Amino acid sequence: MTYSGQLTGSAETICVGTELLLGDILNSNAQYLAQQLAQLGITHHYQTVVGDNPLRLARAIAIACERARLIIFTGGLGPTPDDITTATIADFFEVPLVENAEVLADITAKFAQRDRAMSANNRKQALLPKGADVLPNPRGTAPGILWQPRPGLCLMTFPGVPRELHTMWETTAVSYLQNQGWSNGVIHSHTLKFWGVSESGLAAKVDSFLQLENPTVAPYASDGVIKLRISAKATSVVEAETLMPPVVTQLKTIGGIDCFGENDDTLGDAVGRLLLAHHATLAVAESCTGGGLGATITAPSGSSAYFMGGIISYDNAVKERLLGVLPEALASHGAVSAVVAEQMAAGVRLRLATDWGISITGIAGPGGGSPQKPVGLVFIGLANQTDTWHIECRFGQRKSREWIRLMSRNTALDLLRRALLSHANAV
Amino acid sequence: MTYSGQLTGSAETICVGTELLLGDILNSNAQYLAQQLAQLGITHHYQTVVGDNPLRLARAIAIACERARLIIFTGGLGPTPDDITTATIADFFEVPLVENAEVLADITAKFAQRDRAMSANNRKQALLPKGADVLPNPRGTAPGILWQPRPGLCLMTFPGVPRELHTMWETTAVSYLQNQGWSNGVIHSHTLKFWGVSESGLAAKVDSFLQLENPTVAPYASDGVIKLRISAKATSVVEAETLMPPVVTQLKTIGGIDCFGENDDTLGDAVGRLLLAHHATLAVAESCTGGGLGATITAPSGSSAYFMGGIISYDNAVKERLLGVLPEALASHGAVSAVVAEQMAAGVRLRLATDWGISITGIAGPGGGSPQKPVGLVFIGLANQTDTWHIECRFGQRKSREWIRLMSRNTALDLLRRALLSHANAV
Repeated sequence: MTYSGQLTGSAETICVGTELLLGDILNSNAQYLAQQLAQLGITHHYQTVVGDNPLRLARAIAIACERARLIIFTGGLGPTPDDITTATIADFFEVPLVENAEVLADITAKFAQRDRAMSANNRKQALLPKGADVLPNPRGTAPGILWQPRPGLCLMTFPGVPRELHTMWETTAVSYLQNQGWSNGVIHSHTLKFWGVSESGLAAKVDSFLQLENPTVAPYASDGVIKLRISAKATSVVEAETLMPPVVTQLKTIGGIDCFGENDDTLGDAVGRLLLAHHATLAVAESCTGGGLGATITAPSGSSAYFMGGIISYDNAVKERLLGVLPEALASHGAVSAVVAEQMAAGVRLRLATDWGISITGIAGPGGGSPQKPVGLVFIGLANQTDTWHIECRFGQRKSREWIRLMSRNTALDLLRRALLSHANAV
Repeated sequence: MTYSGQLTGSAETICVGTELLLGDILNSNAQYLAQQLAQLGITHHYQTVVGDNPLRLARAIAIACERARLIIFTGGLGPTPDDITTATIADFFEVPLVENAEVLADITAKFAQRDRAMSANNRKQALLPKGADVLPNPRGTAPGILWQPRPGLCLMTFPGVPRELHTMWETTAVSYLQNQGWSNGVIHSHTLKFWGVSESGLAAKVDSFLQLENPTVAPYASDGVIKLRISAKATSVVEAETLMPPVVTQLKTIGGIDCFGENDDTLGDAVGRLLLAHHATLAVAESCTGGGLGATITAPSGSSAYFMGGIISYDNAVKERLLGVLPEALASHGAVSAVVAEQMAAGVRLRLATDWGISITGIAGPGGGSPQKPVGLVFIGLANQTDTWHIECRFGQRKSREWIRLMSRNTALDLLRRALLSHANAV
């Protein structure tokens, strides 16, 4: 059912969902696919969003067929009546829907495994256009399709659920596109990540690199992390990988200690690697972050090698009883203070018998601020066997609770990272 | 230059920018405009994204003119050569660009005010299609246009910078659209949220409602939460609000205990409200979620009224030492077991002196699974003054660590929610 010859030409994404037209959700799938297509060197000229309406979807398909040779759909594969992508595609190309026995067996098995009853609606997800191949969905019940309804035109469908799309893309779509000759050039990107420097500050430091043509260097920021993306265009990943290292190495040198990682690295990963290398263990004491620092540290699998646990001391009584914070310290300095932050860090380190203890106490808002201690004031404490430290942060009175909690977690991780880098022999 | 008569028909957004096609930025402007159009009751059938290419943009304009009567552009108004939106629009409708003296004076003044030199490029931003009105930009140098190039077709252009778009939309576009008779109705939405039922199961239960025309009812799912969106079209918010309640009430009755909240509510909010109503306090004991349950509970401001804190017992020694889990229980049943989950919940409740204790212990993967205890096996424990309970969950061996941790947190919150609903007098 595959056609001979190389398929080339541009791609178009069609994201299907009335919730996108109502603004209920942000279209992160369009961005994901855009990044993925760019990495494969597949040109991509248009993105279309259309609601759960067969007629309007059919019109969008007609337009896409005129201007693209690879059409990637997301959304509308679910079990409910408003999930109309597969049926509309079949109808547009005038082929019947056929129940796929393998897909039906797979859906049935998935429901059995989860001890959930399968409804008649779910059976609909086993209907595929005649002649289409299954694009397996290891993470959900709805598979996609891979189909060349006519020579020189390739369709792929994915569910709207991002994690299902990502897995299906990585496990099946990439190799399919490469095998079909779509990816005859590549754009290869490498990202360096920074904490402790502003976007404009970093851009000024690396100014001369921002003019490069291949690889290109571009700064951007998200969630307080500053990034430099280095992108090389080449005929192969191997060629692209020879273009990058000299630039990456120079940028790392310029970035110095502010550069904490690369690509998918988080500050939690960076700290984890250092703790492992130092054979050191960690415990956390959290107030305003409520457990979020521990959750960030345990996001990477394998974190049990260095993370023992922690105490969420949201209430002051918990700070006293479980962390050994002195009542006098709370009375004279308040819970949001340098003294209490240090006592929390030292206390959790002792009680959990770890090499390092780290603490966060602050005012995440929107309530609870005062002129002396405004919203956004956060103290971070750090303790090892010989020392305790603290830093005082002011993340901004008008910032959201979510932002202040995020910045607190990342600043705490960065403080520990810098301490581990300079205290290699401290434990 | 305005045409008489009411303009009705649907809208289309065209977001212009190669950075969107490369996936460098998330298209939050499309979501913003979608929400704004929905609030004004302006139907919106398509969103298009196109790069900084005049020919392809002209083709997108031609298509939009066929299917929409209001076309809203974002992006491509800047001073650089790749900002081509205004010139392409003028070219498409075959009118010349004319330098607008007022705009030029405004741009010149803004540069003077910021002590920055105005480049020749910036002068380009004062060029508008002949006959178009200025859509003022109080936050930046690039104004947009408001233009009816022919009867029954209205165009608006905005810069791609979100805060400039938002200000221009709020200060000028909304009243323009209302005055032009675009907004002769509103779409008002209300969302009900469910846990403990599948999307297809809920759709089957409310099947007859999915056929309604006004309000409409549509099911969808995100992050394991199942939602029903009820949307009413009316001439005013007041009228829309009279159409909704009968349907909302019936859907809530059908949903029963599975319906945990509305609109922006999270399971954490629902639990918080119940704890407040019962004057009850809570502590958490977390293993595989590493603090994420506490972080979720403390996401709402004011959670200190019912949340005292918790113990992150990632390591077994912490389970014994700080939670009082019996070594025999760990030895004979393992850390991921019903017995240990119940001891963790009871232990944290006692040590933090709260009314309720809740615990999570499980295998989040990807490593650490066995045939008897596969990845995705999670035990959730619950304790109050008189009882302890547990539930055993199997979230799926192939699910991601992130998903298993998310489902664990939400399932734990839901268990407590159901317990609070049925144990109103237990504390």
